[in-house]
Amino acid sequence: MVEMKQREFNIDKKRNFSEWYNTIIYASELADIRYNIKGFLVHRPWSALAFRHIYRLFESELEADGHMPVIFPTLIPEENFLKEKEHVEGFAPEVFWVTQKGEEKLDRRLALRPTSETAFYQMYNLWVDSFRDLPLKLYQSCSVFRAEKETNPFLRGSEFLWIETHDLFETAEGAQRQTAMDLEIMSRVATEHLGIAFIPFERPQWDKFAGAEKTYAYDCLMPDGKAFQFGSTHLLGQHFTLAFEVSFTDAQGNRKNPYSTCFGPGIWRVLGAVISVHGDQKGLIMPYAIAPIQVIIVPISKSDSGDEVLKKAIEIKSLLLSAGIRAEIDKSDRTPGFKYNWWEMRGVPFRIELGSREVVEKCATLVRRDTREKIKIGIDGLVDAVLAQADLQLKSLKANSEKELAQAIRTANTKEEAKRILEEKGFARIFICTLDMDGRKCAEDLKEFTKGGKVRGIRLGEKPENGKCIACGRDGIRVYFARQY
Amino acid sequence: MVEMKQREFNIDKKRNFSEWYNTIIYASELADIRYNIKGFLVHRPWSALAFRHIYRLFESELEADGHMPVIFPTLIPEENFLKEKEHVEGFAPEVFWVTQKGEEKLDRRLALRPTSETAFYQMYNLWVDSFRDLPLKLYQSCSVFRAEKETNPFLRGSEFLWIETHDLFETAEGAQRQTAMDLEIMSRVATEHLGIAFIPFERPQWDKFAGAEKTYAYDCLMPDGKAFQFGSTHLLGQHFTLAFEVSFTDAQGNRKNPYSTCFGPGIWRVLGAVISVHGDQKGLIMPYAIAPIQVIIVPISKSDSGDEVLKKAIEIKSLLLSAGIRAEIDKSDRTPGFKYNWWEMRGVPFRIELGSREVVEKCATLVRRDTREKIKIGIDGLVDAVLAQADLQLKSLKANSEKELAQAIRTANTKEEAKRILEEKGFARIFICTLDMDGRKCAEDLKEFTKGGKVRGIRLGEKPENGKCIACGRDGIRVYFARQY
Repeated sequence: MVEMKQREFNIDKKRNFSEWYNTIIYASELADIRYNIKGFLVHRPWSALAFRHIYRLFESELEADGHMPVIFPTLIPEENFLKEKEHVEGFAPEVFWVTQKGEEKLDRRLALRPTSETAFYQMYNLWVDSFRDLPLKLYQSCSVFRAEKETNPFLRGSEFLWIETHDLFETAEGAQRQTAMDLEIMSRVATEHLGIAFIPFERPQWDKFAGAEKTYAYDCLMPDGKAFQFGSTHLLGQHFTLAFEVSFTDAQGNRKNPYSTCFGPGIWRVLGAVISVHGDQKGLIMPYAIAPIQVIIVPISKSDSGDEVLKKAIEIKSLLLSAGIRAEIDKSDRTPGFKYNWWEMRGVPFRIELGSREVVEKCATLVRRDTREKIKIGIDGLVDAVLAQADLQLKSLKANSEKELAQAIRTANTKEEAKRILEEKGFARIFICTLDMDGRKCAEDLKEFTKGGKVRGIRLGEKPENGKCIACGRDGIRVYFARQY
Repeated sequence: MVEMKQREFNIDKKRNFSEWYNTIIYASELADIRYNIKGFLVHRPWSALAFRHIYRLFESELEADGHMPVIFPTLIPEENFLKEKEHVEGFAPEVFWVTQKGEEKLDRRLALRPTSETAFYQMYNLWVDSFRDLPLKLYQSCSVFRAEKETNPFLRGSEFLWIETHDLFETAEGAQRQTAMDLEIMSRVATEHLGIAFIPFERPQWDKFAGAEKTYAYDCLMPDGKAFQFGSTHLLGQHFTLAFEVSFTDAQGNRKNPYSTCFGPGIWRVLGAVISVHGDQKGLIMPYAIAPIQVIIVPISKSDSGDEVLKKAIEIKSLLLSAGIRAEIDKSDRTPGFKYNWWEMRGVPFRIELGSREVVEKCATLVRRDTREKIKIGIDGLVDAVLAQADLQLKSLKANSEKELAQAIRTANTKEEAKRILEEKGFARIFICTLDMDGRKCAEDLKEFTKGGKVRGIRLGEKPENGKCIACGRDGIRVYFARQY
């Protein structure tokens, strides 16, 4: 159990999101930013445990889809990066380089992986030889390193946690199909388990991954109206398989290069989204699936009945544990009121209040973190009640997130309207001439005019629409436009 | 399912351990050593999945003992190392240094952590203030980096996987008690779950961790008679709390420095021990608790009954899965004999053979990997049989390991006897004058005389004994002596 050091938490998330965010990270003991390298975060138990559950959700979806885990070296030789031209240009400015061991200078620089295509593909060159070796779908759960100027816990960091998949297919169609599956995996975890509504986009050509043909990315709405990308999938064509000479013999005996994809669920950013989207004035709201503690039991002891109440609390805890519910008792000597605030601030989905009257009546009071609804319930029915309420709570978090996202989206027919929508913390639907490189000039004009708005891309699954580009007036297509993290 | 690329595996482990080991790592697809940085290993799914289970076993024991997980940065500034003199001297020659980001030179060097005391203790300085903050028991599961000249998969590497705990206590006694608990955790996982017998030692003063007062270490016996340390616990006294100015106010109002310990279960080396100790002429034997696949079902299809047999195999698989058993069907078009060899080589604890006659008789043949014993069993009784046999198999692996270790230990009354015992692949019990620094000269004499034997230390839990040092003839104490990895 983490030591209690609570101050009262009471900050309006919508009005002052930045203060809310920075305070809750620290106050709830998710993380500590005082490590002596800027942009490198110390993850305390509350976030380390949440990450364990987030990782397992994604890993089990990926494995059900035929991916297998691997663990690659953290270091990648410079020569590997040089093999794919766009890739090295995209990542070079952000790479941390190892140049020495002990006092000895290395004969070449070794990169701390910013992403691992150039590590995986040289092994794929050795492992792939026949169409029987395909599809090859591997992933690793790890941290990656990118020197960033502006950093913020779980939003942008110089070291952050993610998953990276690296998949090879016989055909372009196989690779394209995988991008749809990646989106489905993201929806299942982020929306169905964690209650985060998001929009999947095809990004403009000028905003794609270094070395990709197309980038698909997943944006949620932050409380300050900005878009926040917490994952992406890249269609890599044959760029990397050509660069690393990965080839196979197909069923007809022809030698070919596979098509490939990579998918990056941004584990770190998924937690950032969870914190930002679900939290409220009282602090965090942890979705049940990833809460380190799902039910906190608070015994309300008076001196004459303390032992009795504690005994019952222990009984309830073991009842919940044996049903697979992560339960804990707060046995500290703080007041019940203090304990309620503390565990609400940390986002524990349910509290059980237990006093001497409840012990006599063989019942307990179950309190929901999001609505703070109280239900009095017989101890025999407690496990079922927690499971049923967990389901309702998730539905409600998800419905709120979907509603907020839907309400934020408005259509802008002019630059001025787009600008106003962004100022009012919304996402604007606009027309732009094209997402090919030709459209970049219009996107830059719009960015300047709106003070920071960026073209997010075509919304996947939305019916295509045509109209005049709000920047240049030429014929264009429907895209979304927003400020971003 | 991993692609089949088997050659017949048939190497005598005892007679040619090194060839056996290097071949099985590659042939069973545990890992690939062909990555283009020496000493850095690519872990393929078979080892990545085994590591998942090894990590979970240790993590759940550590958490039951009150540890909580954290995730610290991979990089540590040089100034942190400089704070503890012995520590920096011990690790400096092995450290990989980051000196650049992009083309910009950093204003100080950043170490890839070789171990994380100097990262943790600067945060402990911020987090610890009162006796109420103690004990503080945190751990992280991560990889660490040490530039090594000689490397071998899972035995010694420049990047390897481990867990590191960093614990603070009010008193020296509290810290000492934790070292006993660390040993108990190691016994529970390595011996009770994985069947590896080992000896816990207090190491000589000249062989302790850089910055420790005492080092306790856990050695198993390798097939070539060498000792192999797969974990250690260090009693750090107040070395690090003084160096990092970590202090607390005790219940009487006095300001004090905590006493500390660290425990490093060598996750990588635990797998190395599992491979080496349990494997046989046919390949790996994976302990049931960590086997990526616990039961492989091999349908023996004749053309007229193939569908029927496959249907039953699927039914059996889902029966096993729903009992929490990791089961898989080998549906490939290889011959049954090929499949038997392949999965035996990869160490899957049980095989189920299923032909059309078994389908008619509603039974299956269960084959144990270690003894290759066959049991015909009704399908209704299959889950119970697997669980019961898993227990027997573990007991038998453990008994073998204990027997081999016990047989390897012999008492030597002279240098010549010690030398012969080592040549005969044993551990020698000898007397040495002392484990304090004064004994180092004798240890070096013995090492030279025996061509590589090293003093392992005092066996914990063994009755102390006195006698004449076999090197110098002075009064001495009972210690163990062996070649080592």
